[in-house]
Amino acid sequence: MFMPVGTAATVKGLTQDALEELGAGIILANTYHLYLRPGHELIRKLGGLHAFMAWRNAILTDSGGYQVFSLSELRKITDEGVRFRSHLDGSEHLLTPEKAAEIQLALGSDIAMVLDECIETPAPRDVAQAALKRTTDWARRARRYFLDSVSRNGNPQQWQFGIVQGATFADLRRESARQLLELDFPGYAVGGLAVGEPHEVTCEMAAEVTALLPKERPRYLMGVGRPEQLADYVARGIDMMDCVLPTRAARHACLYTSEGRVLIKNARYIEDQRPIDPNCKCSVCRRYTRAYLRHLFAAGEITAAILATHHNVRFYLDIMGQIREAITFGHLANFATELRARYVAGPA
Amino acid sequence: MFMPVGTAATVKGLTQDALEELGAGIILANTYHLYLRPGHELIRKLGGLHAFMAWRNAILTDSGGYQVFSLSELRKITDEGVRFRSHLDGSEHLLTPEKAAEIQLALGSDIAMVLDECIETPAPRDVAQAALKRTTDWARRARRYFLDSVSRNGNPQQWQFGIVQGATFADLRRESARQLLELDFPGYAVGGLAVGEPHEVTCEMAAEVTALLPKERPRYLMGVGRPEQLADYVARGIDMMDCVLPTRAARHACLYTSEGRVLIKNARYIEDQRPIDPNCKCSVCRRYTRAYLRHLFAAGEITAAILATHHNVRFYLDIMGQIREAITFGHLANFATELRARYVAGPA
Repeated sequence: MFMPVGTAATVKGLTQDALEELGAGIILANTYHLYLRPGHELIRKLGGLHAFMAWRNAILTDSGGYQVFSLSELRKITDEGVRFRSHLDGSEHLLTPEKAAEIQLALGSDIAMVLDECIETPAPRDVAQAALKRTTDWARRARRYFLDSVSRNGNPQQWQFGIVQGATFADLRRESARQLLELDFPGYAVGGLAVGEPHEVTCEMAAEVTALLPKERPRYLMGVGRPEQLADYVARGIDMMDCVLPTRAARHACLYTSEGRVLIKNARYIEDQRPIDPNCKCSVCRRYTRAYLRHLFAAGEITAAILATHHNVRFYLDIMGQIREAITFGHLANFATELRARYVAGPA
Repeated sequence: MFMPVGTAATVKGLTQDALEELGAGIILANTYHLYLRPGHELIRKLGGLHAFMAWRNAILTDSGGYQVFSLSELRKITDEGVRFRSHLDGSEHLLTPEKAAEIQLALGSDIAMVLDECIETPAPRDVAQAALKRTTDWARRARRYFLDSVSRNGNPQQWQFGIVQGATFADLRRESARQLLELDFPGYAVGGLAVGEPHEVTCEMAAEVTALLPKERPRYLMGVGRPEQLADYVARGIDMMDCVLPTRAARHACLYTSEGRVLIKNARYIEDQRPIDPNCKCSVCRRYTRAYLRHLFAAGEITAAILATHHNVRFYLDIMGQIREAITFGHLANFATELRARYVAGPA
């Protein structure tokens, strides 16, 4: 499954009706953003994130860790947690493994992620090892907090996932996975990848980890990926992915098609009466031309983002459908090769 | 009928699918904007505006005159037409009555407006009289150009409407209407109103004009109005209206409801679990709460504009439906009074 990113309880440019039409069974929402605005206590009071955003399908929330590391100011990491200042108003906050779990219980997401330590890459081995150790300690505390809450308040219908770290060191990745397995999570993520390292390394690390994780529990590679890479990850045992790429690229006039990327602002599309992707069945491709999309982007119209996002998300979800089909018919490796070829040959 | 405004061949924030779901039978597009970008020749080449924007229902195009007067730089009016500089790139253009008609024939709209002279208000009588005279001269030239084109190229399935001017002088309004009637337009607009004068004056001028215009031809009051005013205009014989208000206000977090305006950014709505309008049947009111809408606006999310616009347009179209019902049952005057009362009593 691929999860469109709905940072602030909305996938930018798509209504929940549109997401349902697109067949999105699960979306990702950002704990950091929702904690700061509108606040998890408000969302709890209003019945949780599902009720708040009127979304009946599944929601995965990240732990907030990644955003604390990438967006906030003056962050200070200790064994206790991460102290940071909000990027919105400079207010000071402390995010601990317990707090991250508590916020996500308040949000009532279907899948909650434990707080992990995200490090800059490429990382020296000792830094990666220290972060791995802290990530395991934090995972243990998060798991205990979550299970205590379950025994006190009953099962919240939430799954808590652990996150494997270890940078690009295969032995550290295996060590991290083994430590997390002891905590018996119902699902596991692979974090800290696709952050600049070569695609082959991402694949290799994913394969190292999935080899150790139980096949009957979901394995989630966080923050990936480009359309042509999705099948590669699945071929390494990955079940779940999320990425801002389809939505963010859409807002920047980059459209994904079965023939490669279409940078729709390009003058070559000015009179192009073809749909974005002649092979796509989405409601945008069935109705509008490239010439019209190009015009909307040139004019800075909000409708440009709506239509482009709709198509790009559909394109990603279609690839996932094709991957599932390829698995069924036993030719996933061929499909992965074909997918990569499209993007080399595409009109870019 | 009320026409949502689709300036650049899109109603900002709504897809054509959404417009159809809302029951919009006709929209307005701006000749000035489309002439400058993407250009009427491109749209002609791509099959006209209907094909270009994939919109099967009706389109009315204005003449471009109003935008030339309000948006462009260095405009210079002569009997020939209006010379102006584009607000986009400073390029120089000449808009004549013939050119405005030609552009709209290229766009292939269902209803085209003649070029009129728009003046600043309040206007001295002599200025209004001179503009009236020029508007009639231009209407004559536009009509001739249009009919010549029809006899040369066949009927383009387009109606050309004249525009009555005369500022707030009842006798000038009547004079303008009588002069235009000689040109035998299939429909007539009342222009240059709702530009700052009291609502009663707008109503009075509209009534003066509609009293002279044939009842069996559409009478269109341009650029109106507030929701509580729509029935007043219809009671004066107006059949068609357009206004940016529902769409523009939506983008600025002003929502129209059957209980008055809801300024959704207001803190009072932070925990409000009611729909925007409890009496509205639109897909936004059926699904989302005020608290969620408020959050989306606070977070600057594009989805805020989408949802708010959808509701506001539906609200306007619903009022038009209620007006038609009131006419059928013979209590339009009562309905107009009721509509005004809502907005005095509303939560603002």
